[in-house]
Amino acid sequence: MDLFEKRLADRGPLGQHSKVAHGYFAFPKLEGEIGPYMKFRGKMMLNWSLNNYLGLANHPEVRKADAEAAAQYGLATPMGARMMSGNTDQHELLEQQLSDFVAKEATMLMNYGYQGIMSVIDALVDRHDVIVYDAQAHACIIDGVRMHLGKRFIFAHNDVDNLEKRLVAASKIVAETGGAILVITEGVFGMSSSMGKLKEIVALKEKFQFRLLVDDAHGFGTMGKTGAGAGEEQGVQDGIDLYFSTFAKSMASIGAFISGESNIIDFLRYNTRSQIFAKALPMPLVLGAIKRLELIRTQPQLRENLWTIVKALQSGLRERGFNIGNAQTPVTPVYLSGGKMEAHNLIIDLRENYNIFCSVVVYPVVPKDVIMLRLIPTAVHTLEDVKKTLDAFDKVTDKLKLGVYANTANVSLV
Amino acid sequence: MDLFEKRLADRGPLGQHSKVAHGYFAFPKLEGEIGPYMKFRGKMMLNWSLNNYLGLANHPEVRKADAEAAAQYGLATPMGARMMSGNTDQHELLEQQLSDFVAKEATMLMNYGYQGIMSVIDALVDRHDVIVYDAQAHACIIDGVRMHLGKRFIFAHNDVDNLEKRLVAASKIVAETGGAILVITEGVFGMSSSMGKLKEIVALKEKFQFRLLVDDAHGFGTMGKTGAGAGEEQGVQDGIDLYFSTFAKSMASIGAFISGESNIIDFLRYNTRSQIFAKALPMPLVLGAIKRLELIRTQPQLRENLWTIVKALQSGLRERGFNIGNAQTPVTPVYLSGGKMEAHNLIIDLRENYNIFCSVVVYPVVPKDVIMLRLIPTAVHTLEDVKKTLDAFDKVTDKLKLGVYANTANVSLV
Repeated sequence: MDLFEKRLADRGPLGQHSKVAHGYFAFPKLEGEIGPYMKFRGKMMLNWSLNNYLGLANHPEVRKADAEAAAQYGLATPMGARMMSGNTDQHELLEQQLSDFVAKEATMLMNYGYQGIMSVIDALVDRHDVIVYDAQAHACIIDGVRMHLGKRFIFAHNDVDNLEKRLVAASKIVAETGGAILVITEGVFGMSSSMGKLKEIVALKEKFQFRLLVDDAHGFGTMGKTGAGAGEEQGVQDGIDLYFSTFAKSMASIGAFISGESNIIDFLRYNTRSQIFAKALPMPLVLGAIKRLELIRTQPQLRENLWTIVKALQSGLRERGFNIGNAQTPVTPVYLSGGKMEAHNLIIDLRENYNIFCSVVVYPVVPKDVIMLRLIPTAVHTLEDVKKTLDAFDKVTDKLKLGVYANTANVSLV
Repeated sequence: MDLFEKRLADRGPLGQHSKVAHGYFAFPKLEGEIGPYMKFRGKMMLNWSLNNYLGLANHPEVRKADAEAAAQYGLATPMGARMMSGNTDQHELLEQQLSDFVAKEATMLMNYGYQGIMSVIDALVDRHDVIVYDAQAHACIIDGVRMHLGKRFIFAHNDVDNLEKRLVAASKIVAETGGAILVITEGVFGMSSSMGKLKEIVALKEKFQFRLLVDDAHGFGTMGKTGAGAGEEQGVQDGIDLYFSTFAKSMASIGAFISGESNIIDFLRYNTRSQIFAKALPMPLVLGAIKRLELIRTQPQLRENLWTIVKALQSGLRERGFNIGNAQTPVTPVYLSGGKMEAHNLIIDLRENYNIFCSVVVYPVVPKDVIMLRLIPTAVHTLEDVKKTLDAFDKVTDKLKLGVYANTANVSLV
């Protein structure tokens, strides 16, 4: 059989709809400076789809730092993996600053978050060890777990009783294999907006022996008194053995880091395959991250602005009767009842007639009769943007309830 | 048992030596503009350790393009995965130009090569399929194969007879499972400098049904009449079903691409997990890649310069009796006889007393009694650099033969 024919026979869960969706629902182009107003297909939209939580993407000091660093260094340097030829003082400086900020002994800067956490998981366990992880963990965690040759258990999302059961089972296994246990969860879950139950999980260390790895991609910069993330927010940063975040959200860049005791971080420097066999983070991205971190540390008003918008949006939605689930963080899911056709038409109406751009999530990520709209408030949105959006949501959900979107003829792309 | 204690009991094959090696043999810092002369521990070195084959890292047009793109766009944009919110005209333009250059219908640009090829392999196969791959494949290919749930066979490095035996076995398996076969090799092997036997492998398609994925990280830009890589060099680009390269070598950047028939590339756009669940390549890196590709296409003298240096270095080494194995490409391995201690002292002497910086590879990558020095010539080295290096190599190998490096007291770090 031909491999390509086989693959093309079933284009995958997302690929099946690519012909109708491409360029509109999938691979849309948002043009212009990153911010609440960007162009989509030539029209200015109020945009709620980017994880630019603190508005740093287009902050004048960030833009200046990015431009200066690229002018000074170009985008090529350093070349090679850090272990071979790509290490610099600036990479080490950023590591030290990140360690200070997240209150850990040491940090390993990484060239990209997805492969970074995959390889960290891979480096931490052998076939005798057991991984126990949250059912809603991000794809990069799942892919890291997929490389594991030993046992793994999923616990129901944020269900600490279920986790405890898994730990009982895992403890039995490692008692036999001589292995150890790694628990993985997230600080903030990017779909549901729930925080990982870090406090409760850390408390389980009194009953079970395990190490805890937390991916705080959405919590870093947004949660906690100083923005140091979900561990700080819940007062249990010390109980997190390995604290990971990408730079792709609040930091508005690429790259990532992992922090913990210096011993284990040193171990990871020499054993994380995607880092020892691939090129270091380019210098302008390192210097750009240093500037971004400085702003997160020194400008608490960015986080305050973010939370002003978050609170206005989430309380506004709740007051108007919208179901936003267990939103505890800036991510704002709006759950509506309807099928794919209705989701499709509602989004077209929102974009074409209300000039509002947000992401939509449908089956199989949510149940078949659920439409989840996903709004990402940022520090650079305004209260007026919130009001405009609440009003538009009232109107489109009225139409949804009246069945307007059930008929394709009512709404269509130009 | 504690997971960290367990990991720290054996710091891994590279980590074991980290205490003596850190900062000198591992994680060294090369300072200054990327080029043949860079500072190491305050001293200017003639540097042969960077994959900056065409000298593009510090090419004035590249530096200008990088600086202008970062000034215009900053390093944050676009945000989100391409599928969600990170697609742009420029990403698509670069894809089209890469397709034209490597003579394929379509291209998927990727945010990073390591995770890119891992996820491509992951997307291409299911548990009924069989992967057959070269024993010297890069870590990123190995990690991709490790995610595969079905059978995999390794064939001896560049051994086409051995590959044929594996294909016989693989064909039997897929006849039973209803699966298909994916063969993976490299265009240029970055350690041995051998080219993958692409012509012979493609010829096997007459006897076996399989698809061929080639990682041409070191061949892209350096091999072939136009620099389109090892497939062009061997006249079998059409027989390569999926052509992959990172931007980390000749392109002197980060990011990567994969090219092939548009059907399968479309499939990959919607099914490559590290791409659909992680942030797009930042705009300045896309524009920087467009400029780099333009220079590769329009300035054949860069490749000519490279090969002038490669030929002078490799023929010089051969004439002076050095063993450079089966070097067929710019990568230049120099195989010497000696153990780890001698390798250690030889490198210190080369750096401290001859001001030459190159990488050294020892056991377990090469056999126990072999020291492999690895030189990467570039278009920006000069014939004088080559002469200086050949002379220094004569001297240090004389010392090696005389046993000077067997005694630590003779050479030591300041």
